[in-house]
Amino acid sequence: MKLYNLELSGNCYKVRLFAALAGISLELAPVDFMAGEHKRSPLIDLNPWGELPILQDGPVTLRDSQAILVYLGSRYAGEEWLPKDPAGLAQVTQWLSTSANEIQNGPCAARLVDKFGFAIDKAQTLARTDRILPLIDRHLSTHQWLAVDRPTIADCAVFPYVALSHEGGISLDPYPHIQAWIERVKALPKFQSMPGV
Amino acid sequence: MKLYNLELSGNCYKVRLFAALAGISLELAPVDFMAGEHKRSPLIDLNPWGELPILQDGPVTLRDSQAILVYLGSRYAGEEWLPKDPAGLAQVTQWLSTSANEIQNGPCAARLVDKFGFAIDKAQTLARTDRILPLIDRHLSTHQWLAVDRPTIADCAVFPYVALSHEGGISLDPYPHIQAWIERVKALPKFQSMPGV
Repeated sequence: MKLYNLELSGNCYKVRLFAALAGISLELAPVDFMAGEHKRSPLIDLNPWGELPILQDGPVTLRDSQAILVYLGSRYAGEEWLPKDPAGLAQVTQWLSTSANEIQNGPCAARLVDKFGFAIDKAQTLARTDRILPLIDRHLSTHQWLAVDRPTIADCAVFPYVALSHEGGISLDPYPHIQAWIERVKALPKFQSMPGV
Repeated sequence: MKLYNLELSGNCYKVRLFAALAGISLELAPVDFMAGEHKRSPLIDLNPWGELPILQDGPVTLRDSQAILVYLGSRYAGEEWLPKDPAGLAQVTQWLSTSANEIQNGPCAARLVDKFGFAIDKAQTLARTDRILPLIDRHLSTHQWLAVDRPTIADCAVFPYVALSHEGGISLDPYPHIQAWIERVKALPKFQSMPGV
């Protein structure tokens, strides 16, 4: 099972983190992101979105880090990391949407500006961050984990770009419950880090 | 089972559409969106995000239209509309992410500007639309349905704001495969429309 990977990508790290926590073996295929390898054949044929990560597992090819987490969780990790009951699965999905939208366009996009020089409106990324981080902090004031009463792929989806916020010029000082959750994630058995986390 | 609903919201329409197609009964609770009812108690206590739709089903309360589709599909509609196999579930999830991010911040946001006067950068919404609609059109040039070989909640998640594009000043003329897919969705048994579709 091959993950087309960029070490500094939080979206790729979501998958590496979950694979580590769940004990799933991945072959990492490094991609030359700065040279645009993901925008050209053969990678653009695997993912027309022109984004990383991409997962290949036999005949299955997947784009989108959230979808890859769902695949790995449901195929290789079982109910512990991805509940099968409708309410639990939906609770996880809420956070996958938050990861795909608010986190991607908030702290992730702020980091893309500061760290990689992307031409994105920084003020807008900070405004989105200023909306979403207080909501997450308040949720975590009464919950140990994001979706249900144990860590799931929802935590793996949200963790990377929240833990990397400082690389987009965002301080987590106002968010004590997020900070405590970050420490809980880091304390999980088999936790794997990335540069900046 | 109660859906806090706004008739003109495409996110609420995702849920109404799927419920109609799958034969699921919903009690619609109208929300005075323009008066900000969803930003105040009691609704803000049900969904701190301050957004619609919100679903209540006994003890289960859910925000996020994608998560609500997953819940209804997995609890009340079965595998026909939401595959249980890992690859199928992940294929659906890819499109739920596309709905939560690219569609929400593309054609949906363009419509929020034109129809509801939201203070959003219209040019950016159009740039996002100009990226995502060609990708969807190309995908639909070789697929009848978005995720797998039958209609699923993925089609219900993406359909509303694509079919409402014209209300954000976006023409679907360049996208014949999207147009054909819209007609296929509209031809589904028990299809339900909304104003503008």
